[in-house]
Amino acid sequence: MSIVVTYNKLVEFGDCDPARIVWFPNYFKWIDAASRNYFTQRGVPPWHATEREFGILGTPVVDTHAQFTNTASYGDVLSIHTRITQWRKTSFVMHYEVMRDHCSIMTCIETRVFAKHVGNTPDSSHHQIKAIPVPEFIKQLCGFSQ
Amino acid sequence: MSIVVTYNKLVEFGDCDPARIVWFPNYFKWIDAASRNYFTQRGVPPWHATEREFGILGTPVVDTHAQFTNTASYGDVLSIHTRITQWRKTSFVMHYEVMRDHCSIMTCIETRVFAKHVGNTPDSSHHQIKAIPVPEFIKQLCGFSQ
Amino acid sequence: MSIVVTYNKLVEFGDCDPARIVWFPNYFKWIDAASRNYFTQRGVPPWHATEREFGILGTPVVDTHAQFTNTASYGDVLSIHTRITQWRKTSFVMHYEVMRDHCSIMTCIETRVFAKHVGNTPDSSHHQIKAIPVPEFIKQLCGFSQ
Amino acid sequence: MSIVVTYNKLVEFGDCDPARIVWFPNYFKWIDAASRNYFTQRGVPPWHATEREFGILGTPVVDTHAQFTNTASYGDVLSIHTRITQWRKTSFVMHYEVMRDHCSIMTCIETRVFAKHVGNTPDSSHHQIKAIPVPEFIKQLCGFSQ
Repeated sequence: MSIVVTYNKLVEFGDCDPARIVWFPNYFKWIDAASRNYFTQRGVPPWHATEREFGILGTPVVDTHAQFTNTASYGDVLSIHTRITQWRKTSFVMHYEVMRDHCSIMTCIETRVFAKHVGNTPDSSHHQIKAIPVPEFIKQLCGFSQ
Repeated sequence: MSIVVTYNKLVEFGDCDPARIVWFPNYFKWIDAASRNYFTQRGVPPWHATEREFGILGTPVVDTHAQFTNTASYGDVLSIHTRITQWRKTSFVMHYEVMRDHCSIMTCIETRVFAKHVGNTPDSSHHQIKAIPVPEFIKQLCGFSQ
Repeated sequence: MSIVVTYNKLVEFGDCDPARIVWFPNYFKWIDAASRNYFTQRGVPPWHATEREFGILGTPVVDTHAQFTNTASYGDVLSIHTRITQWRKTSFVMHYEVMRDHCSIMTCIETRVFAKHVGNTPDSSHHQIKAIPVPEFIKQLCGFSQ
Repeated sequence: MSIVVTYNKLVEFGDCDPARIVWFPNYFKWIDAASRNYFTQRGVPPWHATEREFGILGTPVVDTHAQFTNTASYGDVLSIHTRITQWRKTSFVMHYEVMRDHCSIMTCIETRVFAKHVGNTPDSSHHQIKAIPVPEFIKQLCGFSQ
């Protein structure tokens, strides 16, 4: 059974669009915060610390699939229930359910990787990143057991 | 063959995160702009006009599936190639490919609906919306032919 | 003495830019939320309710002056202390101090108005708004006394 | 006479709030892009290049004062006219005028500095930055002459 970590978000006026409902890209902002919060709650250090020690600069998304079932508006308090449903060699799957009380607003399944920077060539303006094997200590902190 | 409409976006410093790459929720902002731009280029009036005339307040997303294959950073010019790949009775499917020159950055497949407001009950704070059948004139403008 | 209402904000990874500090436009998002929260805490109904009853659709900013004294980054908890320092006939002045513990991050002084929509002309695409006199009941709720 | 550089921005649906006008924090996003664009147009390299060579990671805002005179909504094309009105020893003043055709929407005066990172102490999670003297070559590129 996977650990569930909950992140709450009060929807603000400016999160809503002229149709007076949450503008959907904002859900991805909150999901990203919920993902980071999951690791924080499990004791994983902030990315600036993991970057210094292990080169890990974060967990970029490589695939995301979301479904929107109900709308939300400002004043609503949303609870984002987050868990990791799968650990692979160089990626992992996060599952999110966004609720307003007992009403499901949105669900999302993401594949993320742990990434580090690739050394830039001198004339490259791009900060290339690449996936690294999932760090064992993070898996352990997140409750993975064989 | 479906019509392709292209929307360009210059990535800005503030679109990037501490890993120095585009923060992924921003792609959904630009995709939403590309979706609206698709309709504008095909001659569909702005939503405030369609709302006044037909009650149509926009095209909320009900399902989105995106894959991120390369990173982008500020100074990059992204081209978002948008087309409609399917018309259903009360929904349609939009396909996006985000390119930097010949490099694919991200692809996304969305299901959207045309929506109008449902009359609020006096004590309801929520602006409920519901899907309506796809308007024939919009399908025609977008090049649909039987 | 004016009432102070505090709004807390946990800074997220995506709120920060490639310099790894909060991207400054985000402070204005949080200040706007703190402004709305001030009224909510004082018992002022949400804008969709005030719009239905009085035509008041919000409190747009007409003038803002901010000073940034320290940087913040993700993981920081910011407290935004908000108060109203002046009531004028058709505007009011809000003052914000953004703190991380005892360290001042940013201060801001804004002039806002209570606004309602002006009837659009049929061929106008613009949603014009205009300032109205400050509603007495809101001044009372916010602790104003002569 | 100072050089004026213009940056155009098409206002999108998602840039607007439930009052159907641009949500004001978005103006600061566009102003920040206009500021960066000013330097790009004058031949100043991107910040990742200046950071590598000179340690300069950008131009954080230390003071901003904005006035909003008219509203804008989606579909509007805004032109942001940017110039530098003053060079000081360790800061400079940027002036912005946001126009829709001949209608002034917003003006803003900002003080910015050129900043570099201060070495973090090992146990510090904060990325401290500090102002450096305005680089001569940037002043020259921006048309400053004694």
